[in-house]
Amino acid sequence: MSVPNPYWLRDNCPCTECRDPRGGQKRFQIGDLPDGLTAVGAVEDATGLAVHWSDGHRSHYPAGWDAPAAPDERTEHAKRLWRAADFARGLPEADWAAYLADPEERIAVLAAVRRSGFALLRGVPAEPGRVLEVARSFGYVRETNYGELFDVRVEPDPANLAFTGLAIAPHTDNPYRDPVPTLQLLHCLRNDCAGGDSGLVDGFRAADLLRAEDPAAFALLARTPVPFRYRDRGTELAAEKPLIGLDPRGAIREVRFNNRSTDTAALRALSPAGLDAFYAAYRRFAAITLRPDLRLDFRLAPGDCLLFDNTRLLHARTAFETGDDSGDGTGHRHLQGCYADLDALSSTLAVLRRRTAALDELEELFEGEGAGEYLGEAVTLAAHMLQAAALARTAGAPPALVAAALLHDTGHFRGSGRELMAGTDNRHGATAAARLAPHFPPAVTEPVRLHVDAKRYLCATEPGYLDRLSPASVHTLALQGGPMSPAEAAAFAAHPFSADAVAVRRWDEAAKDPAAATPSFAEFRPLLLDSMR
Amino acid sequence: MSVPNPYWLRDNCPCTECRDPRGGQKRFQIGDLPDGLTAVGAVEDATGLAVHWSDGHRSHYPAGWDAPAAPDERTEHAKRLWRAADFARGLPEADWAAYLADPEERIAVLAAVRRSGFALLRGVPAEPGRVLEVARSFGYVRETNYGELFDVRVEPDPANLAFTGLAIAPHTDNPYRDPVPTLQLLHCLRNDCAGGDSGLVDGFRAADLLRAEDPAAFALLARTPVPFRYRDRGTELAAEKPLIGLDPRGAIREVRFNNRSTDTAALRALSPAGLDAFYAAYRRFAAITLRPDLRLDFRLAPGDCLLFDNTRLLHARTAFETGDDSGDGTGHRHLQGCYADLDALSSTLAVLRRRTAALDELEELFEGEGAGEYLGEAVTLAAHMLQAAALARTAGAPPALVAAALLHDTGHFRGSGRELMAGTDNRHGATAAARLAPHFPPAVTEPVRLHVDAKRYLCATEPGYLDRLSPASVHTLALQGGPMSPAEAAAFAAHPFSADAVAVRRWDEAAKDPAAATPSFAEFRPLLLDSMR
Repeated sequence: MSVPNPYWLRDNCPCTECRDPRGGQKRFQIGDLPDGLTAVGAVEDATGLAVHWSDGHRSHYPAGWDAPAAPDERTEHAKRLWRAADFARGLPEADWAAYLADPEERIAVLAAVRRSGFALLRGVPAEPGRVLEVARSFGYVRETNYGELFDVRVEPDPANLAFTGLAIAPHTDNPYRDPVPTLQLLHCLRNDCAGGDSGLVDGFRAADLLRAEDPAAFALLARTPVPFRYRDRGTELAAEKPLIGLDPRGAIREVRFNNRSTDTAALRALSPAGLDAFYAAYRRFAAITLRPDLRLDFRLAPGDCLLFDNTRLLHARTAFETGDDSGDGTGHRHLQGCYADLDALSSTLAVLRRRTAALDELEELFEGEGAGEYLGEAVTLAAHMLQAAALARTAGAPPALVAAALLHDTGHFRGSGRELMAGTDNRHGATAAARLAPHFPPAVTEPVRLHVDAKRYLCATEPGYLDRLSPASVHTLALQGGPMSPAEAAAFAAHPFSADAVAVRRWDEAAKDPAAATPSFAEFRPLLLDSMR
Repeated sequence: MSVPNPYWLRDNCPCTECRDPRGGQKRFQIGDLPDGLTAVGAVEDATGLAVHWSDGHRSHYPAGWDAPAAPDERTEHAKRLWRAADFARGLPEADWAAYLADPEERIAVLAAVRRSGFALLRGVPAEPGRVLEVARSFGYVRETNYGELFDVRVEPDPANLAFTGLAIAPHTDNPYRDPVPTLQLLHCLRNDCAGGDSGLVDGFRAADLLRAEDPAAFALLARTPVPFRYRDRGTELAAEKPLIGLDPRGAIREVRFNNRSTDTAALRALSPAGLDAFYAAYRRFAAITLRPDLRLDFRLAPGDCLLFDNTRLLHARTAFETGDDSGDGTGHRHLQGCYADLDALSSTLAVLRRRTAALDELEELFEGEGAGEYLGEAVTLAAHMLQAAALARTAGAPPALVAAALLHDTGHFRGSGRELMAGTDNRHGATAAARLAPHFPPAVTEPVRLHVDAKRYLCATEPGYLDRLSPASVHTLALQGGPMSPAEAAAFAAHPFSADAVAVRRWDEAAKDPAAATPSFAEFRPLLLDSMR
């Protein structure tokens, strides 16, 4: 093969000397690599690419390590650009209780925010402060001069258009902040006014239309920094950014659109012709954002919480009239909002997907290899682990320990079990713990890792324990090192997870009953997801 | 004069119909302006520019309204690019107690962070959690997956190089986050190891040097999005940004530099020649960041808190050895850090500057016009207000009320007092309140606004009050409307600040003693600053 740039290839060496196996963080700086670095040998086969370097280091790149990367998820290329009619069959929404209970619902909601720019949670209790709970379900609240949360309702002496009953045209929030809050949440506590409906416009779609209809105007807005400013007695925020932000490759990545806060005096720096061109482009873009086919209108009811991407979606509302509760048809409108950020939302989404994928993989193993023989016992490997989990559950063990019981023999999967049956210690406790570590905390992985040692410990310290072992377990005991010495037993007993490992071990021994009822793997999925936190 | 682009000019109309007078927010959207808008008349004189618009609107632009704007404060043009020798005479630093007590110290520290990218606070109590207090003294903590704050010390099972005793080369933090935290704080709780010194490098200076020495490499790094990634059991963060971020005009605005988190596999999308060029540029930039003359080294002692711009400065540390407290010369190193953002820091700085500028202006007025006659009384206007404030202070009034007493007659400044003396009600309570409103809360401005009404109220409701007024005060009473009617008095008494206004009024009447000791304006500056919050 032709070896690509040696610094790039070496920069990607996946060995544990070069990278932390947990987070994947590199352990060297690019400047640590010697000048004149070359590959003095390279062999590619089915397992991947082996490279011997001029400085003596050896790397092995597993097949597929350089699979094409996903595009930057923040640009237009990772989005579904929409117009109102695309939601004719319904908005991306979920019930708050279902969102909390079911990771698949959480994935659907967070993925909608990332892909379409928004989602609606229904049934969030219409109580003050709950909007913070929604934000914390996937990320972190971005506190600002408006507080952790802010109230949107008519105020007697409004410092901001938001706190009147006037209509507000589509805009993004806080363009005068840098970094701008990338997410906004609006939770409806009350909305029984005439008017006060909500509107959303896909700012990426609007920018995309401008690019198609007037490429010069698009280019001008993308390259003209616009000053934004907000000022009150305790605040003076300023930021300077183009209305349309592009990534270095020219893809749409951010929209800031808010005439209320545009400090246009500073645009004086443009030439007269530059001002003419800018204002023509600005007004053309503004007109696109007002096209009715782009605007998705809906009404927030008490308990609804809208989540949206503040770097992309423009939000708006119709005018409304508040009343005096006299029953004349005019009531009140009260939303609570807060800001948060997209990076944490995407992280939560990625971790949820990783976890459900890990569970899918485990479930497949239980149903595939798990249906095979378990070291000559009268139950299958899967039934054995499911019985152990059932025993732990019946015993009232905490979720992490039930998970440990369920997963304790997963080190036998992927063919490893055959080694032990063929007479080689496959160190299946350690293998399972290593495989589970990317997903589960020590409260799960440590009892799994130690459950073989627990057998050796119990055989050494508990009279009669060895006699109760199954013949297969006696057979493997020898391969695993036999009963512990007194010194080994003392060291084991001192381990913080030794009691949990012993508990798993006892369920392990008891979970070999061909007549016992065996639960399904699916039953344990919620518990496993909880244990992953 | 030649009128510039009409939409731009109209977009800047400062009238209260077009703009909220408090925050300056515009009350219209750019699309609300009619097509074909023109100026049908324009007159420029010493007061400014008056425009009559084709849609009937009239605008008046005060002279100087379009003064050239400051450059974007986040780019290189607003910074002092440095190398280590520039701090040979000392670091930008302040004592924590002085910083808290003295707005000028706060201004100096925050301005240093903005201009040089860092500052050091000394004497922050070396207690856990105090770093959050520092962040909240000027802004908001940015919570992340690492928590509100994070501990930097040697950990038994480190998931991150930061939690070892290894040296760390200059880098920025969290490049895998978008928005990246723009500020970092590091507070030293303990540092009695061998080693563990801190280092800072001005990343803007390093980028500037790269641009001068290898413009093609600079341009390549500025246009190549680099994927960054961080992953642990509960987190999966990814961002894609160039190592050198430019504003649309090509000015350096952001540096991300952290080989540990660079997900370089995704650079595979570049052509082989592109990879070669990128790695040559990357290594050239890395080599510049390691130049000794760029690196400022210093040692954090317990109580030191370093604040730095994480979009600009690279931070580093030397290796260190931790010990077992046996007195063999090796001890421990423990920092606590948190993230925050530059926009709030800049806002706090701007507001502090605005407040001290407002006090400077008031002090000048007290010393200038204030030395003049006060409505024919035996004291000057300044002495009158200072005596009123002294009386309020002696009476144990809260700071806001002392401030109100001090400022109650500032409506007479700027020549307004002459009107009243000439026989016209200058409505000086309302004038003063309006002038003070951008800086002071209602607890200060309302008693000021109402102190004339309080005289009319007291004359109507308190037997003998009128008889105790000075002749000048009796004279102006008539101009001001005379004693209140019963209906007026009832309305006044219902006002939430009527009692405070009455208190100010009584001190006002008593503060005309040519023999009384008169404090200086400077004495009240700290109290005035506190009252502005």
